[in-house]
Amino acid sequence: MSAPQTPESALDAREDSSTATREEDAADGIQHSHRMLSFSDALLSIIATVMILPVTHTEISPEQPFDKSIQKLLATRIAVYLMTFLIVTVAWAAHTRLFQVVGKIDDTLALLNLACMMTITFLPFTFSLMVTFPEVPLGIFLFCVCVIAIGAVQALIVVYAFHFPHLLNPQIERSTHRALYRQHVLGIILRGPALCFAAAGFSLFFYPASYLLMATVVFLPYLSKATSWCKSRLVGPREPPPHSMEFFTFDLHEPLSKERVEAFSDGVYAIVATLLILDICEDNVPDAKDVKEKFHGSLVAALSVYGPHFLAYFGSFATVGLLWFAHHSLFLHIRKATQSMGLLNTLSLAFVGGLPLAYQQTSAFARQPRDELESVRISCAIIFFASIFQFAIWTTALLHERETLQPSARFGGQEHAFMFAKLALYPCASLLAFTCTCFLSRFSTAIFHLMQIAVPFAFLLLRLLVRLALAVLWALRGLPVPELGAEDDSRSLLLPAPC
Amino acid sequence: MSAPQTPESALDAREDSSTATREEDAADGIQHSHRMLSFSDALLSIIATVMILPVTHTEISPEQPFDKSIQKLLATRIAVYLMTFLIVTVAWAAHTRLFQVVGKIDDTLALLNLACMMTITFLPFTFSLMVTFPEVPLGIFLFCVCVIAIGAVQALIVVYAFHFPHLLNPQIERSTHRALYRQHVLGIILRGPALCFAAAGFSLFFYPASYLLMATVVFLPYLSKATSWCKSRLVGPREPPPHSMEFFTFDLHEPLSKERVEAFSDGVYAIVATLLILDICEDNVPDAKDVKEKFHGSLVAALSVYGPHFLAYFGSFATVGLLWFAHHSLFLHIRKATQSMGLLNTLSLAFVGGLPLAYQQTSAFARQPRDELESVRISCAIIFFASIFQFAIWTTALLHERETLQPSARFGGQEHAFMFAKLALYPCASLLAFTCTCFLSRFSTAIFHLMQIAVPFAFLLLRLLVRLALAVLWALRGLPVPELGAEDDSRSLLLPAPC
Repeated sequence: MSAPQTPESALDAREDSSTATREEDAADGIQHSHRMLSFSDALLSIIATVMILPVTHTEISPEQPFDKSIQKLLATRIAVYLMTFLIVTVAWAAHTRLFQVVGKIDDTLALLNLACMMTITFLPFTFSLMVTFPEVPLGIFLFCVCVIAIGAVQALIVVYAFHFPHLLNPQIERSTHRALYRQHVLGIILRGPALCFAAAGFSLFFYPASYLLMATVVFLPYLSKATSWCKSRLVGPREPPPHSMEFFTFDLHEPLSKERVEAFSDGVYAIVATLLILDICEDNVPDAKDVKEKFHGSLVAALSVYGPHFLAYFGSFATVGLLWFAHHSLFLHIRKATQSMGLLNTLSLAFVGGLPLAYQQTSAFARQPRDELESVRISCAIIFFASIFQFAIWTTALLHERETLQPSARFGGQEHAFMFAKLALYPCASLLAFTCTCFLSRFSTAIFHLMQIAVPFAFLLLRLLVRLALAVLWALRGLPVPELGAEDDSRSLLLPAPC
Repeated sequence: MSAPQTPESALDAREDSSTATREEDAADGIQHSHRMLSFSDALLSIIATVMILPVTHTEISPEQPFDKSIQKLLATRIAVYLMTFLIVTVAWAAHTRLFQVVGKIDDTLALLNLACMMTITFLPFTFSLMVTFPEVPLGIFLFCVCVIAIGAVQALIVVYAFHFPHLLNPQIERSTHRALYRQHVLGIILRGPALCFAAAGFSLFFYPASYLLMATVVFLPYLSKATSWCKSRLVGPREPPPHSMEFFTFDLHEPLSKERVEAFSDGVYAIVATLLILDICEDNVPDAKDVKEKFHGSLVAALSVYGPHFLAYFGSFATVGLLWFAHHSLFLHIRKATQSMGLLNTLSLAFVGGLPLAYQQTSAFARQPRDELESVRISCAIIFFASIFQFAIWTTALLHERETLQPSARFGGQEHAFMFAKLALYPCASLLAFTCTCFLSRFSTAIFHLMQIAVPFAFLLLRLLVRLALAVLWALRGLPVPELGAEDDSRSLLLPAPC
């Protein structure tokens, strides 16, 4: 009777040891920041993708020609979406850096963080105002007020954390130059808000200057990097500052926390995958009166009108899900997310956010052959870009494979060929579908649907297919097929593949 | 020059050790399931809360009387929301149990899981159909098809995992009764779908029976527990089955994984907090033509029309954020989430999901004094129930404090009084506001806004207030005030408080 108890008590013991340090801290009201950061990541990823909704909800009746005014409206909304995505990812990166300095939180910091999040969620609205009324300075004024508020809250967080040094990253806590650090961090945090303060002033009498200043704020990290690079080329390499100081810059020089990149990406994928169900549940339940009058009481007939919407939903969910799958497989083999990989990831996610749009267009235009062709092509293009940027993350990681990749995914590793195939599948499939629509424009929908059905199966059978392809490759060269999976052989087997 | 390198290499070392086991497994394409589970949690939490949108979007013009037809529509939609929430949390709990059996994943399992998620996201739509057309059996038929599909995919996952035992929980992997386990787990998984198969059959000729069967499926875990309890009372306690066998039942007997409860709750809080911004960004940007014609070109005047919406957004975000904060503090001190705590958490979350509705109603009715009073009361009631269920989690945890709580949060622990105050704040404030509106009905909006502003400050100053209250309490009793924070004294200080 004692043996069956073992598993639970073993679990208990494991739990105890893992929570031992947590218990210690929790006693003083100090907490590890992990859960707060995941919550912030979830919030930020939703905000980043929210602005695709006005784009997908742009109503275009089938009779209406796809004219200039609609093109302009769509372009405007897409611009808002991309700007929002950019600014939120910049805010997210700054948040990541900030909580690399502040290692632990207490109640006050958690509440300040919530205030910061609330202000960030207001940013998309200011962009909508800016783009709808580019000549009225109110939008940019509100934007500046938001940025200043965010900066103020973040400065408060820093001041508070430095006042209670046990909340800081242990490295800074132990440092003798703590006051210097504080000034440095505060300086970087308040740089953007200071510029925005000037921009808010300009917005009252000369708004074009505000737009210029705003662009400076958004691209500040990149600008500062470019400046320092130019300087070093002009006056020769400067004496490097103490390294530990550099570690806490908010520039994009340092690798981002891999966990937070994953959490943010997960949030974006999850919200994008379910965006269309939001619409379906609300709009696609037929009215009881309509069913009686128009469809003679046949619910099935009434629902079949919405058929394309359901197809669009499943198509978009499957594509987003599989792209998540590729992302998941990729990050499983990544050890560190460098600056450029983070940028590529953001670009990939921005296109992923556009997928619901593409699929909704596909279903909306299903009746008109000419527009249908166009929307199938747009869908293919969006899928292509979303997946090719994932592939680019992989190639960038391969350039510094020792630091960035797990051994098994490096050149010659066991998983290298599979990884390559996984990430190349969507770019190839979408490119193929796009090309096919050029030659067989009459069958564009069929081609698109074929791709949608074929790709998930290709993912399921990927391992088999890759092995088959390698076997064929080696058979063609007239060599014996080495056993895949044996560490030593796999190097000799896989090295020639990327050539 | 070597010293500054230390922090980075220290980080590297930490990273290396934490990823050592991961690297090992990744080499075979086997992965820890952590990230896939968080992604599933995010998806499921979004789906669970999605159906509040049709409720919030119910359009009620200020002129229209709040009559029967609208009440019926609202009631219908709220019923759909609650049913969806219930069924998704049941599916989530089953998913949690399933991946307690399957400890690791590979590509095939990740893809199967995606298929499972896709089917679950379709469930809310079937509920909408059922409620809108209760007499047409199509809704229930589709629901049954979905449940059967989910069951089939989950059975596939189990069969696959038992075919490659290294994917299983190490405890089952090592067990000698593996085949027995498989049968047991499969039996539990396929119980629901089998009932649904019968329900689908009935729906074709006698649909009321299907509804009965459907209810059985949803409440199956509770029913089976009630049955076993009755049986044990009637025939006396049965010989308990081998304990390790019980460990993997899918009933609600076992504690849920605390991490997954947190992740699911975080998802719900995050999506609820941002639901209103979705609407604001889309609907509350005034039209350029309107601004020119109606407001003589004044954007500020045009925006002020939407003032109540913004207020509603900030109010709802702050409330949801602070409830998240209370939840976060609570779970920081919880070691295990038992069955009843999980149920209470679900109930709390269901009310949290209703918050956007409450706030939107507050803003929509702002013009009509009578309706305003009603909606302020509804808001207070929703906040009260959301927070009182959190409080109930805490009291339930206190009943078994040795297993469920960290030492510092137990009776007499240092954090006990703070925790109590944190969780009691919202129930008290909402109850107070509700009572005030009964006496001072003319000032109901003012009271509600006052509450909204006061509560965040109360949270900020909580520690101070609690210490003050305790000091006053002890001064009244004429005793010297003990130092809070000293382990020995705190017990004597805090024990009388709950009496």
